[in-house]
Amino acid sequence: MLKPRRYAILGTGALGGFYGARLSHAGADVHFLLHSDFEHVRRHGLVIDSKDGDFVLPEVQAYSDVHEMPRCDVAVVALKATQNHLLPSLLPPVLADGGVVLLMQNGLGGEEEAAKAAPGHAVLGGLCFLCSNKVGPGHIRHLDYGNVRLAEHAADSGPAGVSDRTRGIAQDFTSAGIQVDIEEDLVLARWQKLVWNVPMSGLSVVLETDTQALMADPHTRALAEDIMHEVVAGARACGRHVHHSFVQKMIDMTLAMAPYRASMKVDFDEGKPMEVEAIYGNPLRAARSAGAAMPLVETLYRQLKFLDYPNKRDMARRRARSS
Amino acid sequence: MLKPRRYAILGTGALGGFYGARLSHAGADVHFLLHSDFEHVRRHGLVIDSKDGDFVLPEVQAYSDVHEMPRCDVAVVALKATQNHLLPSLLPPVLADGGVVLLMQNGLGGEEEAAKAAPGHAVLGGLCFLCSNKVGPGHIRHLDYGNVRLAEHAADSGPAGVSDRTRGIAQDFTSAGIQVDIEEDLVLARWQKLVWNVPMSGLSVVLETDTQALMADPHTRALAEDIMHEVVAGARACGRHVHHSFVQKMIDMTLAMAPYRASMKVDFDEGKPMEVEAIYGNPLRAARSAGAAMPLVETLYRQLKFLDYPNKRDMARRRARSS
Repeated sequence: MLKPRRYAILGTGALGGFYGARLSHAGADVHFLLHSDFEHVRRHGLVIDSKDGDFVLPEVQAYSDVHEMPRCDVAVVALKATQNHLLPSLLPPVLADGGVVLLMQNGLGGEEEAAKAAPGHAVLGGLCFLCSNKVGPGHIRHLDYGNVRLAEHAADSGPAGVSDRTRGIAQDFTSAGIQVDIEEDLVLARWQKLVWNVPMSGLSVVLETDTQALMADPHTRALAEDIMHEVVAGARACGRHVHHSFVQKMIDMTLAMAPYRASMKVDFDEGKPMEVEAIYGNPLRAARSAGAAMPLVETLYRQLKFLDYPNKRDMARRRARSS
Repeated sequence: MLKPRRYAILGTGALGGFYGARLSHAGADVHFLLHSDFEHVRRHGLVIDSKDGDFVLPEVQAYSDVHEMPRCDVAVVALKATQNHLLPSLLPPVLADGGVVLLMQNGLGGEEEAAKAAPGHAVLGGLCFLCSNKVGPGHIRHLDYGNVRLAEHAADSGPAGVSDRTRGIAQDFTSAGIQVDIEEDLVLARWQKLVWNVPMSGLSVVLETDTQALMADPHTRALAEDIMHEVVAGARACGRHVHHSFVQKMIDMTLAMAPYRASMKVDFDEGKPMEVEAIYGNPLRAARSAGAAMPLVETLYRQLKFLDYPNKRDMARRRARSS
């Protein structure tokens, strides 16, 4: 492909804003869809405070309506998974012929939703290991990490191998200073990420804490380990072999991290819907279809469903404000 | 026994204060051990607001030191189970020859602790179904229920049958207007109570809610039912046959109750230690010794152990004050 790829960033928050700004800063043609920050970003651009070096994009191609965007070669879905009901209205207008969807979300099942919403287009999954927060309108603070694992979605959810288009997108990200690993099996990569995400996100919300406190208490650390092993068993039932030693690797990694507020905890504290179905419901249903129960994961799922109710979210928001 | 039984109430709170005051009001010889309310109660007595009729005991035999109390025929332990490390210093000075301990606590294992603390004395267990709160110094509000199941502890924890002393104490309680049922198997009665207590207490604390909200949400209701069935299975492993239909009975009972803040939730909100070992740790260990795992109960146990840490209790207290 000689023509440079044109990117659409659907959802310019802590994640989409960060990766989109990096691509744009490196010279890519990037078009940002915004909601609440549209007016501010149209006038003032994006400001990125990053541990890898601060930078500003004073002029940004910003849109509040997907129908005003040009058709793009890559539509990066950087919305929360709770917004995926919007994909059928967002994706078709913004995709060029042969354009691909790159879904940068947590959990399982998002690529199926994207594929249904954009028939005839290839779908890639991007697993992001990123600590970043939106600290103001158009203002993103990148705290740590930032690498991406990239893999292609297959209609049968099996390993899809590595295509030229995946390599091309990875090249664009790499040129923008983002470390990318290409994976052959998207679903395996997603289960691996769930091994950490399922215990850490849910327990952080239910027990109102952070990753370090969970590790420091022997009871919650043992609970997190048991949940991780259950996720490994669920993955295996779904035909994805994660070694049980991966659990110890995740524990060691968490112990080495600075205290971290999981993104689901951030959503909860801000009174936003949590990605409970993507991170818990979909893996539970996939494992159950494959004959594997995950009772500890289901316990967390049910606790989170209770806390995700709108009136409970209001309570959490009020409490976060008063503390 | 022609001489009327003399009672010591060890712990004059919402529970000990209520039952002791009823016994005293009905003419029994009752001696109250108090801690923070001692001066107030010595001067002003006890005030009971009860759905069965308010009453006042203007003069109360109040003590702040167990060594000043007369030796009694029945030492009622109405402390929280978290205080049972005090039993070896509290019980021997207050028990008459042939005196018995009546342990009115939640959970499992308290009678063993009492028996060790008072060698040579019989131990009875009292399971209280009581909604009452302490609303001020020496001031108790009785909201609902109040019946007691009474049974004798056996050294081998087997069914102990019904002795004359149990019948005599039951008679005193009945004369004081308290409904008493005598049980032959204390451990069976304790497991039955755990079927309700384990899910309802723990989920109320972890999810910061009440029994009605837990029943209204289909996810937490299903979780509570699954936990109840797990407790039933644990009881069976320990040789106590609770029928699985008992679970539906407990659900129906909870649905029929007014919204209720479990006593463990009250303790948590007030920044007090929770009875985690009595209600979770001891049943878990008993079931495990009998070869039964209770993974959902263990999950709640670990979550509660995390929240029961002193610094987390401080947080809970601050939050309760600010809301």
